[in-house]
Amino acid sequence: MVPHRVPRWPSWLFRASPGWAQTACALRAWVPQGRWPGSSRGAGAASPLARRGCSSMPSQPPEVMLTQERYPVRRLPFSTVSEQDLAAFERIVPGRVTTDPGELEAHNVDWLRTVRGCSKVLLRPRTSEEVSRVLRHCHERNLAVNPQGGNTGMVGGSVPVFDEIILSTALMNQVISFDDVSGTLVCQAGCVLEQLSRHVEERGFVMPLDLGAKGSCHIGGNVATNAGGLRFLRYGSLHGTVLGLEVVLADGTVLNCLTSLRKDNTGYDLKQLFIGSEGTLGVITAVSILCPPKPKAVSVAFLESPFYVLIETSGSHAGHDAEKLGSFLEHALGSGLVTDGTLATDQRRVKMLWALRERITEALSLDGYVYKYDLSLPVERLYDLVTSLRARLGPRAKHVVGYGHLGDGNLHLNVTAEAFSEPLLAALEPHVYEWTAAQRGSVSAEHGVGFKKRDALGYSKPPTALRLMCQLKALLDPKGILNPYKTLPTRA
Amino acid sequence: MVPHRVPRWPSWLFRASPGWAQTACALRAWVPQGRWPGSSRGAGAASPLARRGCSSMPSQPPEVMLTQERYPVRRLPFSTVSEQDLAAFERIVPGRVTTDPGELEAHNVDWLRTVRGCSKVLLRPRTSEEVSRVLRHCHERNLAVNPQGGNTGMVGGSVPVFDEIILSTALMNQVISFDDVSGTLVCQAGCVLEQLSRHVEERGFVMPLDLGAKGSCHIGGNVATNAGGLRFLRYGSLHGTVLGLEVVLADGTVLNCLTSLRKDNTGYDLKQLFIGSEGTLGVITAVSILCPPKPKAVSVAFLESPFYVLIETSGSHAGHDAEKLGSFLEHALGSGLVTDGTLATDQRRVKMLWALRERITEALSLDGYVYKYDLSLPVERLYDLVTSLRARLGPRAKHVVGYGHLGDGNLHLNVTAEAFSEPLLAALEPHVYEWTAAQRGSVSAEHGVGFKKRDALGYSKPPTALRLMCQLKALLDPKGILNPYKTLPTRA
Repeated sequence: MVPHRVPRWPSWLFRASPGWAQTACALRAWVPQGRWPGSSRGAGAASPLARRGCSSMPSQPPEVMLTQERYPVRRLPFSTVSEQDLAAFERIVPGRVTTDPGELEAHNVDWLRTVRGCSKVLLRPRTSEEVSRVLRHCHERNLAVNPQGGNTGMVGGSVPVFDEIILSTALMNQVISFDDVSGTLVCQAGCVLEQLSRHVEERGFVMPLDLGAKGSCHIGGNVATNAGGLRFLRYGSLHGTVLGLEVVLADGTVLNCLTSLRKDNTGYDLKQLFIGSEGTLGVITAVSILCPPKPKAVSVAFLESPFYVLIETSGSHAGHDAEKLGSFLEHALGSGLVTDGTLATDQRRVKMLWALRERITEALSLDGYVYKYDLSLPVERLYDLVTSLRARLGPRAKHVVGYGHLGDGNLHLNVTAEAFSEPLLAALEPHVYEWTAAQRGSVSAEHGVGFKKRDALGYSKPPTALRLMCQLKALLDPKGILNPYKTLPTRA
Repeated sequence: MVPHRVPRWPSWLFRASPGWAQTACALRAWVPQGRWPGSSRGAGAASPLARRGCSSMPSQPPEVMLTQERYPVRRLPFSTVSEQDLAAFERIVPGRVTTDPGELEAHNVDWLRTVRGCSKVLLRPRTSEEVSRVLRHCHERNLAVNPQGGNTGMVGGSVPVFDEIILSTALMNQVISFDDVSGTLVCQAGCVLEQLSRHVEERGFVMPLDLGAKGSCHIGGNVATNAGGLRFLRYGSLHGTVLGLEVVLADGTVLNCLTSLRKDNTGYDLKQLFIGSEGTLGVITAVSILCPPKPKAVSVAFLESPFYVLIETSGSHAGHDAEKLGSFLEHALGSGLVTDGTLATDQRRVKMLWALRERITEALSLDGYVYKYDLSLPVERLYDLVTSLRARLGPRAKHVVGYGHLGDGNLHLNVTAEAFSEPLLAALEPHVYEWTAAQRGSVSAEHGVGFKKRDALGYSKPPTALRLMCQLKALLDPKGILNPYKTLPTRA
């Protein structure tokens, strides 16, 4: 039941367009109009997203500058790892203590290659009990810890700033249970999102979240960063879909809130504290999450107008869905709002269209250095900053690109250049933050704060809120050993 | 497109059935099979739910026993309200300080008439600034405060235990804004849910929650108690739909997290702390909440089998919805799972069917005293406790009734008797809690903890969690003046 005007596959889908600078806005997701860099066909090529864990990334010159050299940040007075500490770790996680500098390199650098720590030890626990013993030791010894999932973050939250011990969830990758009546999945924090998706899809459900980084991001990291992503509009925030968490606190205490109940009003909802706290309040070791039923029918429309718009519908009856989408498209085309487009219902083509959207981040990184902003804005102002920045920056920027999630009011603003430069940064900040604050927007919609945005928080949060954040940090991690230099403003 | 077997209106809908004791289970909501007490037609009568605020309730003998007499609870060493305090309040909220015992009566007693405080003063601020000044004064003077919305709670959380000052949100009833693109409603905490529903429905949206008490409950109270209700299965928890809150802390500090953004990852999601904290961590003064689009088509099926089941579907295309519901019903009837039923699509009949479900609480209260339990359980064990309690209690209980929300795994277990009695209570508790804990269920699914359930928390939460709850309380309300004797266990 698709209207006759839609299924003529438009030539532009396989055609090189004018260039990057002409960019794209959106409803469900936006995609920039333009040639796919590094590939004439783009989405067909094998995706390095699956390798975001970095370990197998070919080494790229120039080497990433150390965070402590690029940014004005000073090491806090934590202890340094001694031979005795290493021996203690070896007793707790035997054979899973890494000190080899080559192996550590990939865990010290973020996948965007913008920040770099100098940790000398990586631990790979398998159980929450092991995490607990590691943290108890670090707490006693005043050793700083950087919890790390798939290392796919955008804001430098997942790598050390100095020599923090890297606590990887990579081996905590077991599914604990799945209830195929309620759709509740319980699993360890290190499960890779895409593998969980496959696990629940085989059982007739889908994960409530989906991200470009799904091939390597860990569910624990998703929850710790309150990841948004491509299904946010449909299934809502992790604050609603996460049912329970197991968290190890800074002193090694295991906080078991790993319930699978849909409703539980027995006191304060403690798990909420850890959703989006980026490992600064505790280390998430297991997650209980509600998975919606797998839609029986999925349609993706990719539409062309001044902007590219990608819309996905999902439902239980293909005929009904096609009829509704068809009548929407008929209206949109008839009114001139949409000028051209393509529609996909088979899985291969759906994936191909989504890849155009999902691989933008990766494509941008090929330009050199990427200044990334992730803003929540009133929908009617969503693209204004892109246009005005192009005028403001002129040839200093290679590209100023705006895409994101129109339905969520979320703009991903990216400015690319050959390399990092202070003057370009000064032209961007605080201008971008001030502009956002003037719209009462958020300076971090879904990417979080991490290391890079912590001093921008004040543009979106009042001093009272920042103060309470610091008080919560002091309550839960009085020595400040968990993911230091992250999330909280330098001064509050 | 409704299958031929369904639209024969069954005679049982207007027929008196055997009796209360034969009760009812369900998918979306369950309704007990039986005669509607106090009315031969039930749902047609004018509903006292609209009057749950209590002020116009006719006085009923016997008088409700004072909480401090019925329960082993001792007054904490707060100050008592002096003439100077009253004068100070009069300066802050001029003309809105009530000390008349007659007027106070309705605010001292819960609507279920099971707990009763002896507050001597009621304050009715209009703005958060006034709330802030009231709390600053109370904090300085060590005066305890009982925040009160519509006083429709089930667990004695909304009335004072001793002489706490009642801080009513009744006059904080202004809608601040509504965005008819995003569906975001921003309003003061004292807005009545039903009035908000009307406000947004006129603009093409619906509130994401709906309760039997909608005619008098306040949105601030809904958020403070993390109310579940009839739309939970469809739109999820308030932890997902509430976008922002303004909260006044115990010392009068105004915490403004009243954002309207769908995505905001600028640090810890502080508002979550207050959702479900029952006024013990702060007083919610304004709410920003995401309203879903109003469904163009609503169908309600009320089905009969060993249990009554009420199912509501909502969608954007009546024909499609009828076809899908029809094919479900055809399958359910064909397989013998459902034996009879009725279907409604017009608003009047939809309301009538819902009233059967919504007025159960009210009906039960006519039996005398109601022992209420609100449990989350694995769906397959949902009704077992009802059956076993009937055998256990025998004639000591007037009725043992189980209904609730099958889709959410939420059983409302009600045991009625002429009057409160210690031996009956001892037969119920801790048995009900122990049984629930053995199923890894929750002893409070959606009603909260309040005064009555605080010492049952340990059945659903580990000691580590209870300890952290107490630490959060101490951090946010070091003097413990906010809603004392509620939510937190006596010992933790």
